[in-house]
Amino acid sequence: MISVMTGEKKEMAQNIYDTAEFFEGYSRLNRSLHGLDGAPEWPAIRALLPKLSGMRVVDLGCGFGWFVRWARTQGAAYVLGIDLSENMLARARSETTDPAVEYAQRDLEHVELPDGAFDLAYSSLTFHYIEDFGRLTRTVFRTLVPGSRFVFTIEHPAYMAPTQPGWLVKEDGHKVWPLDSYFIEGNRITDWLAKGVVKQHRTMGTTLNTLINSGFTIRHVEEWHPTREHIAAHPDWAEELDRPLILLIAAQR
Amino acid sequence: MISVMTGEKKEMAQNIYDTAEFFEGYSRLNRSLHGLDGAPEWPAIRALLPKLSGMRVVDLGCGFGWFVRWARTQGAAYVLGIDLSENMLARARSETTDPAVEYAQRDLEHVELPDGAFDLAYSSLTFHYIEDFGRLTRTVFRTLVPGSRFVFTIEHPAYMAPTQPGWLVKEDGHKVWPLDSYFIEGNRITDWLAKGVVKQHRTMGTTLNTLINSGFTIRHVEEWHPTREHIAAHPDWAEELDRPLILLIAAQR
Repeated sequence: MISVMTGEKKEMAQNIYDTAEFFEGYSRLNRSLHGLDGAPEWPAIRALLPKLSGMRVVDLGCGFGWFVRWARTQGAAYVLGIDLSENMLARARSETTDPAVEYAQRDLEHVELPDGAFDLAYSSLTFHYIEDFGRLTRTVFRTLVPGSRFVFTIEHPAYMAPTQPGWLVKEDGHKVWPLDSYFIEGNRITDWLAKGVVKQHRTMGTTLNTLINSGFTIRHVEEWHPTREHIAAHPDWAEELDRPLILLIAAQR
Repeated sequence: MISVMTGEKKEMAQNIYDTAEFFEGYSRLNRSLHGLDGAPEWPAIRALLPKLSGMRVVDLGCGFGWFVRWARTQGAAYVLGIDLSENMLARARSETTDPAVEYAQRDLEHVELPDGAFDLAYSSLTFHYIEDFGRLTRTVFRTLVPGSRFVFTIEHPAYMAPTQPGWLVKEDGHKVWPLDSYFIEGNRITDWLAKGVVKQHRTMGTTLNTLINSGFTIRHVEEWHPTREHIAAHPDWAEELDRPLILLIAAQR
């Protein structure tokens, strides 16, 4: 077992996930009820993953542990799930007795990980809550062995940027995404499941250059969008062709 | 002297630059009148360039040859400027008698270049007119020596995408950029200097993955925006903080 180091006690990031309102709403999302297959971007993520057989894997922001358990079904030798939310980790722990799975409650703003301990770092829709992305990427770089992958998703910066997010319908009925403040990085406060959720907007350039400056090589940049099959099954998803929602990045140490 | 190969005669790209209306408008732009220093993104581009001393340089879409001549002042050993526009090349040729400068009229959709002939490939605001970016990046990869740089700018995809480009002022006075059709790649027809200018929209992911799949390593991705000094000098540029206008990419063979 690899144990995460315990850093000093530092100021904690907003832990919105442990508020009752957010947690209950989050628990009812498709991706919470149905796991990986409840997330439309999952096939695109999976296509970026290496074969997991024998790998030591860390999931940064593991939530209910869906990916952690799936990685074990793919032959991962050991999977560490890290999350800030006690409620989520409690449920994740209750779902498995697998001795090759470990969970740790850590704040990703301050987490420390042992050098060269993992063969894959994974994260889904978590890093847009992180203020210090540079510190985190340097930590991930050190904990990966050379040649290994770092695959993660975040909300797309064009989705995150607007000060008034939400489709805008013009007088002629034409619907647009109201982009503004793209270069004003930092806090974005939205009401999603709960009021006052704080996210961190970074430009595409900042995200990519932070990875590159930490030593990673960019292998693939995917702006997720629904396929024709998705739209046939869910016609209301067609609007997802108008602006990017989720950014998938595969980098290599 | 390195000569560009002459490919077969193929269907030519739209040559809007040689229409009188466009050429005259273009010639009056700041960047045409004042050269590199007339382009606000020039200092950001320059920061991505290697030292040019002794280098063989190709400029894809050289226009009036401002960069070509500048590269020679920086000690480049040889500079080839390629453009589709006869008018622009005529002016470029009239500006220099330098024997280490060569100009060639070629369509970048079909251009062929000798293997391992250049140490730097450069292009400014040209590739968004190109349909087959994959072919072009493979051509550039082959013509560069290993380790060399490919630095270029294009209109940013969030700027290119909208079907109705132009700031949208909401009833409350709030101004937004009307993003739509981001994932609908291909033709964008705008009236800029002349009517019916055809540009090619590609997503950020497509541009980056095309480079990666051609063998390049991404070294820097910059979404240009004005500095505080720019905005102090030109207060109307503040809107350029709301959405990205120009994308700068530095890749390495």
